[in-house]
Parts: sequence; structure tokens; C-alpha cells
Amino acid sequence: MPVNRRFLLVRRPVGPPVAEDFDIAEEDIPVPAAGSFVVRNHYASLDPAQRGWMDDAPSYMPPIALGDPVRATTIGVVHASANPDFAAGDWVLGLNAIEDYSLVQPGGFTMKIDVSQVPSPTKFLSAMGAVGLTAYFGLLVDAKPQPGETLLVSGAAGAVGSAVGQIGKIKGCRVIGIAGGAEKCRRLIADYGFDVAIDYRGKSVDALAAEIRAAAPDGANIIFENVGGDVFDAELMNLALHARIVLCGLISEYNSAERVGARNLWQILVKCATLKGFLVAEHVARFGEAGVEMARWISEGRLRIDEDVQEGLENAYPAFMRLFSGENKGKLILKIA
Amino acid sequence: MPVNRRFLLVRRPVGPPVAEDFDIAEEDIPVPAAGSFVVRNHYASLDPAQRGWMDDAPSYMPPIALGDPVRATTIGVVHASANPDFAAGDWVLGLNAIEDYSLVQPGGFTMKIDVSQVPSPTKFLSAMGAVGLTAYFGLLVDAKPQPGETLLVSGAAGAVGSAVGQIGKIKGCRVIGIAGGAEKCRRLIADYGFDVAIDYRGKSVDALAAEIRAAAPDGANIIFENVGGDVFDAELMNLALHARIVLCGLISEYNSAERVGARNLWQILVKCATLKGFLVAEHVARFGEAGVEMARWISEGRLRIDEDVQEGLENAYPAFMRLFSGENKGKLILKIA
Repeated sequence: MPVNRRFLLVRRPVGPPVAEDFDIAEEDIPVPAAGSFVVRNHYASLDPAQRGWMDDAPSYMPPIALGDPVRATTIGVVHASANPDFAAGDWVLGLNAIEDYSLVQPGGFTMKIDVSQVPSPTKFLSAMGAVGLTAYFGLLVDAKPQPGETLLVSGAAGAVGSAVGQIGKIKGCRVIGIAGGAEKCRRLIADYGFDVAIDYRGKSVDALAAEIRAAAPDGANIIFENVGGDVFDAELMNLALHARIVLCGLISEYNSAERVGARNLWQILVKCATLKGFLVAEHVARFGEAGVEMARWISEGRLRIDEDVQEGLENAYPAFMRLFSGENKGKLILKIA
Repeated sequence: MPVNRRFLLVRRPVGPPVAEDFDIAEEDIPVPAAGSFVVRNHYASLDPAQRGWMDDAPSYMPPIALGDPVRATTIGVVHASANPDFAAGDWVLGLNAIEDYSLVQPGGFTMKIDVSQVPSPTKFLSAMGAVGLTAYFGLLVDAKPQPGETLLVSGAAGAVGSAVGQIGKIKGCRVIGIAGGAEKCRRLIADYGFDVAIDYRGKSVDALAAEIRAAAPDGANIIFENVGGDVFDAELMNLALHARIVLCGLISEYNSAERVGARNLWQILVKCATLKGFLVAEHVARFGEAGVEMARWISEGRLRIDEDVQEGLENAYPAFMRLFSGENKGKLILKIA
């Protein structure tokens, strides 16, 4: 008889998560009460935000409780339903957890998806999902790029960063990407069409700042920030007047017990720049319009969002850690079934 | 025969400025060429921004050149003029330097002022000057306070901070001030009408954050930031959703060779907050309207902007350092003549 394997958070990580912070429990498959239903999860999204949810700190949603499975956006098939709006066999996307089966309460974040329209259901976690929507709204709504402006993207070879750079090119910006290592920098140019790729590895803040300055002597009009720490400090030394900074992620800081912080914040003052925290959920009312435009750009070959699909719920921990090692080569997804 | 004493920057400070970074030269009083004029400076404004101008770093104006007098906003009387728009005896305000006499080129920042309208010419450096205008535009334009919102002000007993808190009260906010020491906290309540005063001294980031949380359990809607470092980190742990942060100064960081930085920047992300760098010069077109409203509030007894006038150009260095020691009790001004 099948069981429900659940990837539990059993201890709050201090610094980088270690295997002992997690456990895999085997439980009975839940049975839906009236109004709820059970989803057989096929894919789980692995995202930097999950690291934040593991801390007991103020955020836009409560921390994951110890002993609970790790919260994740998943896609799967309705396994059993006591809700008239969802039938067994329906494909759905929702905020569930890394587990074989999720009990879904009505009124949650779950919606039906039409997987016949896409080459793989995983597209709903990448191009058609939070990655694509984050790039779309973060850049277009919060930063409002204008033709001829210089856009600087950190974490540029990641799923969000690479999409941001490509959308920046579509909007007529000069796009500079910062990534870790020669191979990622090669991909920025060859695969994603960035104008300039800068490798941050092995460079001091001053050296990286000088390299950015050489590529953008008049400064960056827009910074799309995914990384934080030293990389962000180097970027801050290269702001154009009235620069707009979209703060989308700070992945270099999430695992640091002692954060580096932003030590060049005074540049935001002297350049009258604006920094705005970005959460994709703020834009939910416009998800449909974004999906249509993103799908068009993809079909026209102007936008490419790669996926890095890791196999097996039992590999959830090492798969998750690829986010921080820089090994992932696109949107990181865990295939559960 | 009178000479022109000039307070020169002779070495770039590393960390806190020391007396040896400066020198006082005695030169001949300049003679105006056609179109220019010479001002006998009476008062010089001493501001945290001057510390930034002493560094060789990108900013909104070039660094003070070594060997040049320290740039400052001054008020004084035209001593000799070869410009038809300015006559000997006119009171003027302008961006000059800490020196007895400044040679003013046409097209600069200098304007005539009517000192008969104010109890002391120094008001043009405090209530009617950059201090009042900074508080007015920084709070009202960048943060747009709404009645019932919680406004958190750091450096609250300083010239700008105390004005911001009072304008926040005029606009119906609940105002919490952070200052250093019991006496300043007493003044926040007694002199400036703040609702809550918090002394940051001797407290860890966590302890200070907890004290702010006790005063503002739902978080701050607006932060007016003058300080940076540990104080800012504690404030960042207390953001309301969509909080607006006006970045006006980072005085705790200006003299640090190793800056603390903002280590809790991720809170700006998870609270979808906005941080905006503020320069008063951006609002020059609306200075007149602000002056009228500020003057009305002052005459109604609703706004009080204190001054801390130090005497003598020869005391420029110790007077300037009062900005960083926390000794100053209002807008810091150096009386030159």
C-alpha cells in the first residue's frame, strides 16, 4: 500500500541548512473531509524563499512549523476529492509542501491548470509560474525600463535573472549580467543574449565595482538584485542618478549567520535612488496578462527559461542545496512522481 | 589689514576626521572679477553631508579637493561686488566654504535673503534652510504620511529628526523617536511632542528591535532614517507591510572605515517596502511653498527647530565633530563673524 513520504523541517537551520535539519516521514495518505481534496504531487518548486520560511522571523507568511513538511509550490493531480470544484484526475497548482500527497483545504492558493497547452507540466513552475511572473512584474512594473537604459542583473544565470535580462533586451535596454564562473558567463551571452557578462568570483568589492564601471561608465539605471552582500555593494558603487533597484532576492545572505549587509547604502542617498522590495504575490491580479505576453515571447524564440529538474523526494535536501552552491542550471524543480 | 582665514581640507579622513586632516590658512581677501562678488561670511552650516564630500567617492557633487576650504552653505553680507545683481551690504545665502570671505561666481547657488523677516539670520540655515526643507519634503513628498500611521524617526533629537517628528504629529501620525541618551529622549517628549522616545544606547540590535516592537506592535509605516548601522537594522525588523523608508542620512556610518551596513535588508523584501534616497536639492522648485507652510507652523507654535551655534572659524574642527559625538542640540551652525 502506498504511503505519503513527507520532507519535514525538524530543526531551524543556523547558517546553511544541513541534512540533520530535515527528516523524511512516512505517513498514511490523507483522506479528504467535506470540501477538501488530496493532490498527488508530481513536481515541487525549489526556491530561495523557502530558506526564509525556515527561520523564525517576521515575514509575509508564518515560518514553517517544526515537524511540518517544507512548504512549496507544487503541481500534481487530484487523487481524491470531497470538493465539487475539483475532480480526481484534475491537474492543479498550489502552495502545498514537499510530500507525495497534500491535503488541500478550500479557499487556498490552489488552481486548476491545463497541461495540454505546454510541453511539460513543469512550465507552470518556470516560464508560466513564479519565475516568469517575478521577472515580468519585477522588471516591468517596479523598474519600468526605458529603451537605451542600462540594466544590471545579479544572479543573472539563475532562472529569474536570465529571464529579467532577456525581457530587458526585449524592452531595448543594454543588459549587464553578473554571475559566478566562466561557464555561466558564457551562457549569459550565448543562451540569453546579454550584452556583457561579469564573473564575480574571486573579486573584491572594489575590483568588481571597477569591472562594472568599465562596462557601464554612466552607471546603471536599473539594478535587479537577486544576490546581496559583496555583489550588491559593488553594484551600489555604480548607480546612475535616480536609479531604480528591484530587491528580489539576497541569496548570498540567506545562509549567513553573520550577514555581510549592504555597506554602500549611502550611494542610494547620494544618487536619489529607489530600492523596492518585490513579492510576486502583490501582482496576482495581473498574472493572466503577463502569462499571455510571456507565452508570446517564448513562442517567438525571444525568451528562454531553462529548468533544472532533480529526481526523487528522497533527494529533496541535496536538490534544495543546489540553489546555494550555484550548481543549478535554470529553474530548480524536484520531480516527486 | 584683515585677512581671509580659510578652513582647508589637507588630507582625506580615514574614519573619524582628526585635527590634522585640516589646516587654517590666512590669505588675502579675494577681489571680484567682472560678474563675480565677494561675501563676508557670518555663519556656516555644519552638516553630516560635508563628511561625505571629504571622501573621494562617487556622489552628487565632486569631492572637496585637497587644499581647498571645506565646502559649506553660508550666509553673509556682500563685501565687494562686480556683479550688477548684488550690491555691497546685501545679505546672501549660498554654497560657499568655511572661510571669512568667499569669492562667488555668477550662476552659482547664491541667493539674496531678507534677514529683517526673521529673529536671526541663522534661521536661513535651520528652519528656513536645508534642515526645515529636508524634513518637509523628505516626509511629506517621499513618505506621504497618513493620519493614524506610525512614523519612526532615528536621530530624532537632531535638527532634521526633531522637525520630522513634529511635522509627523501635525499630519496625525503616531511618532516614535530614537535618540542617544536620557536627556535627548526627555527632549523628544517635552520639547518636540513625540509620542514615544527610545534610547538606543547600550542596546544590542535585538534588544532595540524588541523595544521598538513594544512601542509599535503593528510595525512602522514610515521610517525616516538619519542614522544607519545597528539602529537601522533594529528598525528594519519592525516594518509594516508596504512601509516607506526615507533614507536621509547614515551618520553612524560616515566615519567608519569598516561600515556595519544594513544586514536586515531582506525585511524590505518580505514587507514589500520601499527605500528612497533623499536629497533636498531635488525639490528646489517647491522651496517657496514649503517655506510658507513651515513659517506658519512655527508662528503657530506647532514647530520648533533648535539651533546649536558654535563660535569662531578657529573652532571649525571641534564644532564639526559635535555632529558625530551627539553633543549638538539642534541645527549645528558655526558663527564666523
